[in-house]
Amino acid sequence: MTGPTAAANAGATRHRVVIIGAGFGGLFAARVLKNAPLSVTVIDRTNHHLFQPLLYQVATGILSEGDVAPPIRDVLRKYRNTEVLIGDVTTIDLERRTLNVVNLGEDLEVEYDSLIVAAGAGQSYFGHSDFSRWAPGMKSIDDALEIRGRIFGAFEMAERETDPAKRREWLTFVIVGGGPTGVEMAGQIAELSHRSLHRNFRHFDPATARVVLVDAGDALIPAFGKRLSGKALSGLHKLGVEVHLNSLVTNVDENGIDAKAPDGSTMHIEAQTKIWAAGVEASSLGKLLGDGSGAEVDRTGRVKVNPDLTLPGHPEVFLVGDMINLNKLPGVAEVAMQGGMHAARTIKHRVETGNPNLPAKAFHYRNLGDLATISRFQAVAHIGPIKVAGFVGWLLWMFVHLTFLTGFKNRVATVFNWFIAFVGRGRPQRTITRQQVLARSVLQQQDRQ
Amino acid sequence: MTGPTAAANAGATRHRVVIIGAGFGGLFAARVLKNAPLSVTVIDRTNHHLFQPLLYQVATGILSEGDVAPPIRDVLRKYRNTEVLIGDVTTIDLERRTLNVVNLGEDLEVEYDSLIVAAGAGQSYFGHSDFSRWAPGMKSIDDALEIRGRIFGAFEMAERETDPAKRREWLTFVIVGGGPTGVEMAGQIAELSHRSLHRNFRHFDPATARVVLVDAGDALIPAFGKRLSGKALSGLHKLGVEVHLNSLVTNVDENGIDAKAPDGSTMHIEAQTKIWAAGVEASSLGKLLGDGSGAEVDRTGRVKVNPDLTLPGHPEVFLVGDMINLNKLPGVAEVAMQGGMHAARTIKHRVETGNPNLPAKAFHYRNLGDLATISRFQAVAHIGPIKVAGFVGWLLWMFVHLTFLTGFKNRVATVFNWFIAFVGRGRPQRTITRQQVLARSVLQQQDRQ
Repeated sequence: MTGPTAAANAGATRHRVVIIGAGFGGLFAARVLKNAPLSVTVIDRTNHHLFQPLLYQVATGILSEGDVAPPIRDVLRKYRNTEVLIGDVTTIDLERRTLNVVNLGEDLEVEYDSLIVAAGAGQSYFGHSDFSRWAPGMKSIDDALEIRGRIFGAFEMAERETDPAKRREWLTFVIVGGGPTGVEMAGQIAELSHRSLHRNFRHFDPATARVVLVDAGDALIPAFGKRLSGKALSGLHKLGVEVHLNSLVTNVDENGIDAKAPDGSTMHIEAQTKIWAAGVEASSLGKLLGDGSGAEVDRTGRVKVNPDLTLPGHPEVFLVGDMINLNKLPGVAEVAMQGGMHAARTIKHRVETGNPNLPAKAFHYRNLGDLATISRFQAVAHIGPIKVAGFVGWLLWMFVHLTFLTGFKNRVATVFNWFIAFVGRGRPQRTITRQQVLARSVLQQQDRQ
Repeated sequence: MTGPTAAANAGATRHRVVIIGAGFGGLFAARVLKNAPLSVTVIDRTNHHLFQPLLYQVATGILSEGDVAPPIRDVLRKYRNTEVLIGDVTTIDLERRTLNVVNLGEDLEVEYDSLIVAAGAGQSYFGHSDFSRWAPGMKSIDDALEIRGRIFGAFEMAERETDPAKRREWLTFVIVGGGPTGVEMAGQIAELSHRSLHRNFRHFDPATARVVLVDAGDALIPAFGKRLSGKALSGLHKLGVEVHLNSLVTNVDENGIDAKAPDGSTMHIEAQTKIWAAGVEASSLGKLLGDGSGAEVDRTGRVKVNPDLTLPGHPEVFLVGDMINLNKLPGVAEVAMQGGMHAARTIKHRVETGNPNLPAKAFHYRNLGDLATISRFQAVAHIGPIKVAGFVGWLLWMFVHLTFLTGFKNRVATVFNWFIAFVGRGRPQRTITRQQVLARSVLQQQDRQ
C-alpha cells in the first residue's frame, strides 16, 4: 500500500459511511444507502454473505457452500457508491474516526464519517473454549464444511470399526443446544441416517445411528411458544431423535459429553461427533466499542446502545443485530435487517438535510415471525398471530426462504437443489476433502503421543 | 482393529477381487462384477469418485465439488457383493497376495485373489516439484478448491493494490500446458473476467485481466488433429487469451514464470496466479508393482503390461487406465473405462468357468472420440470420423457429458446448475474459505521472515 489511507477512502469528499459486516444488518443498510449521495465501504472477514438460516443444510450435505454464500461483491455490484473491503477490523478509534483493518495480510487505515457496526455474533462456549475442538460450532462456511466432514467421516469410521462399542460411539451424534439450529441439525442427521445413506454401508445399518439433542432449558425453541415447542419435540421423537432437556453440558472431550440435571444427577454419553449449537457471543468489536466509549457491555459481549441504536456519546456510530443489548431483542436475522435499515435511513436523512447532528428516531422492531424446520415436510412457524406446525408450517417456511433467497440473483439453482434434496433422498454434497482426512489423522497421532 | 485381516475380507470364502481406485477404471470394473459370485472391495484415497473432465468447472466457480464428486458408496450402493474402503495403499505383496492400507489413520492388511490396479495419475512437474507451491495442479477436489480460492483471491488482491505494476501481476493468470484441461481453464478464466465479475470491482475493470496459456509444443490439444487444434487457438484468441506455443517453462516462482523457446530466446511473465496443467505421472503404485514383479516402468511411472493388461508374471494382477504403457494408449477416461471392464470380464470369466489360469484375451481399445470445451457454446470434438468445432461441437460435448453424468443418480441438479451457469453470467461457487485466507497470510508472513 502507498499510505495509511487507502483506496477505500478514494471518494473522500463525500460523506463516508463504513459498514462492518456483510450479514443481514450490513447488506440491508447498504441497500438503503445505494442511491444516496455518499460513499459506502462494506468490510467483512470473508468474501461472502452468509445465509445463516440454511447453514445447517451445508453441514448435512444438502446444499453446497456457494448456495448459501453469495459473494458480497456480486450482491452489491449495482450499488455504484459502494465498495467492498475484505479484512478483519482490529481497532476502532472513535475520536479520530478511523479503523484499522488487516486486509489480506496487510494493515490498512480506513476513515469514516458514519459507522455501522453489524459484525454479528460467534459461538459461545460459556468459558469452556476447550470444548470447541471436540464440538465445533455452526457459525461460518468453514464450520459447516468441518461438520460435514465429521458427520460423513464418522460413518466411514463406523464401517471400518469392528468393536461394537466403538462403532456405537462413531454412530452417536450429540447436538448441544435446542434452539432452531440444534433442532434442525438433529432432524437432518436423523433423516440422512435413515434415508440418504440407505444401502451405503456393509457392516452396519446407518439407520441405527443414535442422534441425541441435549439442552439445559426445559423446552426446545422456547421463543416459539409452548405449543410449537411441543410440536418440535414430538417431530424429533418421530424421527428417532433422543432429546434430553434440563441437561447442562459440563464436559466435552474426544469420546463424549457429560451433562448434569438440576437435581444433581449426571449423564454421560459416548459419542465421537459432537456439535455445539448452544450459545452465542457478540463479536469482540462490541467490547472494543464499550472500552472506547464507556458503554455497558453485557456478559455475552453485547453493547447497551441508545434506543436509536447509536453508541452512547457517539451519534455517528450505530450498532445493529446480534451485537446489541436493547429491549430484549432476539438474535434473529429480522432484527439485524431492520436495525441496519434504521441506521442507514438515519444517516441518509442527516446527509440529505445537511444536518449531521439531527437526532435519530428510536428503533422499533416489528416481529414478522419465527420459523424452523425439523425435517422434510415438517416445520414450525410463528408469524404474527399465526402458529402452525407440520406440513403447513413447512410450506410457509419454504415460501419465506424462497422469498429471501430470490432477493439475490442467481438463487434459482439453490432453490432447485434444495427441492431435489427435499423431495428425493439425495445428499449431493458429501465431499470430504483430503485436507480434512489428513488433518484428522494428524490430530489422532498427536493424541497418541 | 482386532487383527491384521479386517472386515474388508469378511466374505473370504468367495473369490476376492480388490480394485484400487474409484476412478473411471475402477467403477466400470465394479459394474461388470456386480452380479458375479465373488466379493469385491474398492479402495480409494477419498470418499468420492471424481468426474475429472469437469473439474475445471469447480476451479472456476461454475459447479460445486459435490456436483463432480459423487460418493463412491452411493454410486456402488446397489452392488451387494461390493464394499468400499477409504485409504492409501502403501505396499503390495505380490507373493502373499496382500495389500497394506492406511485406512483413516490405522494400518490394515487386505487379502486378494485378483487385483485390479486403477490408481490413475497425478500431476507431474518433470522433476521441478518446487513449482507445485506456486502453480498447483488440477487433479483432485482439493486442487480445484485451492485454485478457485487463488483465482477469486487474486481479484480481491488487485482491488486492494494501488501500485499499477503489482495490480497487473495480480490480474495476470498463467496456465502451463495446452492440453484439454489447460485450454478449458484458460477459456473459463477469460470468460469469468469478462462476464461473471462484471461490475464487481471499483478500482479496476476485471475484463482487463491477462490470461496466458504457455505450452512447450507447437500446437494446442495435439491429439485432436491439426484442424481442431487451430480452432481451439482461434477460439482462445477471440476470448482474449494470449497463447505462447514452443515455450518450455524453465522456472516458476512467487511472482511469475520463465520460459524458453527452441531458438534459445527467453520470456518472463509476471503473474501471481499460475496453474499447472502440463504433465501427468502415474500413481506411485506403478513403481511399487514394477519393483515387485520386475516389469518395466517408464519415465512417467507407467508400467509396461502384457497385451491382456496383466502384470508380467502375475496373471491375477491387472493394471488399467493412466498407469499403463501399452500401444501408446492415451491417458483419457475412455481407456480407463474400457480397461476396467476388460479386466473385470476376464476375472469374472475365470471364476465362472472355475479355471483361475484361463489366459486373458488381449485388450483392444475402441476410440469413441475426444472432446474439449473452450468457452460457452464453443467446443471442439473428434468422434470417429467426425471433427467439429464451434457451437455444434459444444452441443455434442454437452450431450456426451450429459450421458455420462446421468449414469449416476441424482446428477440432474448438476446438469441444471451447469445449464444455469452457461446460459447466465453466474458463477455461483465463489466461496473462499477463511482457512484459505489464513493459509495465504501465513505463507506471506513466512516469506517475509
